[in-house]
Amino acid sequence: MMNPPKIVLRAPTPALLEQLAQLLGTKGFTTDTNVMQPWLSDWRGKYHGRAAAMLSPASTGEVAQLVKLANEACVALVPQGGNSGMVGGATPDHSGHQLLLSLRRMNQIRRIDVAARSVVAEGGVILENLHNAVALHGLRFPLTLGGKGSATVGGLVSTNAGGTQVLRHGTMRALLEGVEAVLPDGSIFDGLAALKKDNRGYDLKHLLCGAEGSLGIVTAARLTLVPAIVHRITAWAGVDSPDAALALLRRLDAGFGREVEGFELIPQSCVEAVVAHIPGTRAPLPAHRGWHVLMEFAAADSARTQDLVTLAAAAHDDGLLTDMCLAKSEAEADAWWRIRDSISEAERASGPAIQHDISVPVDAMPQFIAANPERLSAVFPGARAISFGHLGDGNVHHHVQPPTDVDGKDWIAKHGEAVSALVYAHVIALGGSLSAEHGIGQMKRALLERFSDPARLGVLRGVKAGLDPTGIFNPGKLVP
Amino acid sequence: MMNPPKIVLRAPTPALLEQLAQLLGTKGFTTDTNVMQPWLSDWRGKYHGRAAAMLSPASTGEVAQLVKLANEACVALVPQGGNSGMVGGATPDHSGHQLLLSLRRMNQIRRIDVAARSVVAEGGVILENLHNAVALHGLRFPLTLGGKGSATVGGLVSTNAGGTQVLRHGTMRALLEGVEAVLPDGSIFDGLAALKKDNRGYDLKHLLCGAEGSLGIVTAARLTLVPAIVHRITAWAGVDSPDAALALLRRLDAGFGREVEGFELIPQSCVEAVVAHIPGTRAPLPAHRGWHVLMEFAAADSARTQDLVTLAAAAHDDGLLTDMCLAKSEAEADAWWRIRDSISEAERASGPAIQHDISVPVDAMPQFIAANPERLSAVFPGARAISFGHLGDGNVHHHVQPPTDVDGKDWIAKHGEAVSALVYAHVIALGGSLSAEHGIGQMKRALLERFSDPARLGVLRGVKAGLDPTGIFNPGKLVP
Repeated sequence: MMNPPKIVLRAPTPALLEQLAQLLGTKGFTTDTNVMQPWLSDWRGKYHGRAAAMLSPASTGEVAQLVKLANEACVALVPQGGNSGMVGGATPDHSGHQLLLSLRRMNQIRRIDVAARSVVAEGGVILENLHNAVALHGLRFPLTLGGKGSATVGGLVSTNAGGTQVLRHGTMRALLEGVEAVLPDGSIFDGLAALKKDNRGYDLKHLLCGAEGSLGIVTAARLTLVPAIVHRITAWAGVDSPDAALALLRRLDAGFGREVEGFELIPQSCVEAVVAHIPGTRAPLPAHRGWHVLMEFAAADSARTQDLVTLAAAAHDDGLLTDMCLAKSEAEADAWWRIRDSISEAERASGPAIQHDISVPVDAMPQFIAANPERLSAVFPGARAISFGHLGDGNVHHHVQPPTDVDGKDWIAKHGEAVSALVYAHVIALGGSLSAEHGIGQMKRALLERFSDPARLGVLRGVKAGLDPTGIFNPGKLVP
Repeated sequence: MMNPPKIVLRAPTPALLEQLAQLLGTKGFTTDTNVMQPWLSDWRGKYHGRAAAMLSPASTGEVAQLVKLANEACVALVPQGGNSGMVGGATPDHSGHQLLLSLRRMNQIRRIDVAARSVVAEGGVILENLHNAVALHGLRFPLTLGGKGSATVGGLVSTNAGGTQVLRHGTMRALLEGVEAVLPDGSIFDGLAALKKDNRGYDLKHLLCGAEGSLGIVTAARLTLVPAIVHRITAWAGVDSPDAALALLRRLDAGFGREVEGFELIPQSCVEAVVAHIPGTRAPLPAHRGWHVLMEFAAADSARTQDLVTLAAAAHDDGLLTDMCLAKSEAEADAWWRIRDSISEAERASGPAIQHDISVPVDAMPQFIAANPERLSAVFPGARAISFGHLGDGNVHHHVQPPTDVDGKDWIAKHGEAVSALVYAHVIALGGSLSAEHGIGQMKRALLERFSDPARLGVLRGVKAGLDPTGIFNPGKLVP
């Protein structure tokens, strides 16, 4: 396979900046560092960079023209949406030679097709705005996540975003019916016509989804919509083990199929931490249990509640759950989701931790959760491993806390990398992924190189070399 | 974007053939033209070629080794599964320099995971064998097509196969959980672990699906299974127009959702042709109608039949259908599907036709069906256009018959190309695809070049150049 040619990217010349300024106008072009400042660091403050200018085109045509100019001049472009990614994928480097390409002005919802249940939204549309716009038509875009107030459609496509509804609706990839994108040579790929069948070779939509802006700038996407939820059922169950939780999930799959929308595994220690640190929270079940499961169903009608109770009773008799309660109101359901969503915050209140966003095959997840704490403490005595999250997706957030008797920050500075290497090696041995949701960006590029076989690396480098031979799209991200 | 480098592929040397013979043994290597003969033409007899040898490896390791040897020697490989493709994609060229790579000996079903509902099958497993193997576990692989007795898993993946259940279950792409493949440099990509979330960059599974063997040899695939059908409901309805049929489909979508498994549009003239030419067939509805719809549901229980009758009555009151009958037995349902499946045969009995496998956005399909006959007859007086097939997929088989008063074969020889150009131009104007199901292969390569914008062609050529710089995988197919 082909390796990317060695091409030296350059700083933009004053003449190029002048051309870009004229192309994009005062709303679309700035070199003012005060204006650029908020976009030169990621939202968590972990990555910082500089830029020669920030470009904010208002149309696909403008994107195409500016890409053409940058490509001819061998100047790097760093695409950015809401700047709420987790791996530094939208932050420029320190050279000051790169151009920050903001898609935020491209924020039009071009078309909502109620009958066909799809929407065409530009790359800069904010997720929450998309939710609200389609809700007016009794429809729902079934992907949501914490950053919905800032995350944009282009970024969600480019990172193949996940969230809490993947179990039923899949990641962004499964909801993506078509894309419009500008390629590194400045050509426009118009793939917005929603074709259910199209066998004309390599599927660019799937290539761009998760490419982190390294192959194309997603200027618009056609997305699948589903009917608004008719009847929401939220349940909280106690289970003895992750194994039992998985067996319960299989039972629910058989009985409720695609109505199962959420299935989050939470250890008792996390519930305790939340109740201790987050004001106004309380545990849904009175007694202590080994593990908890928060379940949500988008049911066809209210009669399904009784079906769930019947199923739960049988599951109880078979030892799959110890107890279960149903949310009696939307407020109670929201309170339970708040427990789930506050785990990280509660954990931070009790000290630093090393976080891992990993996935393994669903069936291997109980084994990983059970075995990994021992693997860790055998090498790092006193280290505590916590797993919680989307069991049904094979995706847990796996946090490792320092021993209680040491300075946590020091310990992490000293052992963090080795701890993570141990976690990732276990994940890879189970056939898993060192990035389930968040992508690679800057953060995991070296890790990806270390833990990938030659075939995977060859594909990454070969496709990048073939589609972006000049290397102007988001250099230093994703591709090792 | 990068163009494929100009590399001259070579004929295999006697030394290379000897190496391959030793690697693969007598079962896996032959240069005997009598043995190779059946595999050097496509099943319809439209494409013919020659080969220096036929290689039939028995394992992924053997595939990797032979690919490495061929790559080093710049010798082309033409992968082949069941040899039942429609576009000459698995037939070697006339040079006699290419190596035919048969996957048929790799026919093991490696694993059926009942709980997770997935199967890992090697590239040479025949579709019908796969159906039978999973049926023993009460499961179903929900993709089927006419060639199921010969089509193999590797070919079905490499062509992103469709079939009659796409409306509910999608094409092969939607059922593909993972692949194992050998890349052009001989490296093995092991992507069989079923990860529901994995954001490590470009998705090779989606790249290989529909790549027609031009990027990788699919040695195994992990595929999604669904429960065996509990209650099958088959209905036949008369409708006034394709518009009414589409409105009916939307109504069914709302009421039956994913239970709608098939929705085939058939013009009255096709029903008449079948009844006239195919012994033992009769029209399900007595009176003549403009159009017919054959519907199939995989229902949860028998009570859904009454739900369908209720829905149909309301649809009738709203003018969406004129009449409907339900199959009273499996035999009757099969007889109705036989009508659908005999349309091409009945048509052949009444003379030659120019066939097109095209798709447009679902909502544009009624417009295409209504407008295209007039567009054609305006240029080619007397030409008759017939559309039938998967309305819900936006995919019809669009056949054009010569005028009745001329010699059909002569007319097609003279006008066929111009007729097809007119059809494809119309399809492209509606945002459609000139290959919905069958792929590009040899047959549509020039057409693809003619009717594609620079961005699409750039992606095809760039990805091919990046992953197969030597150009040894299936040259002369797909990529223009």
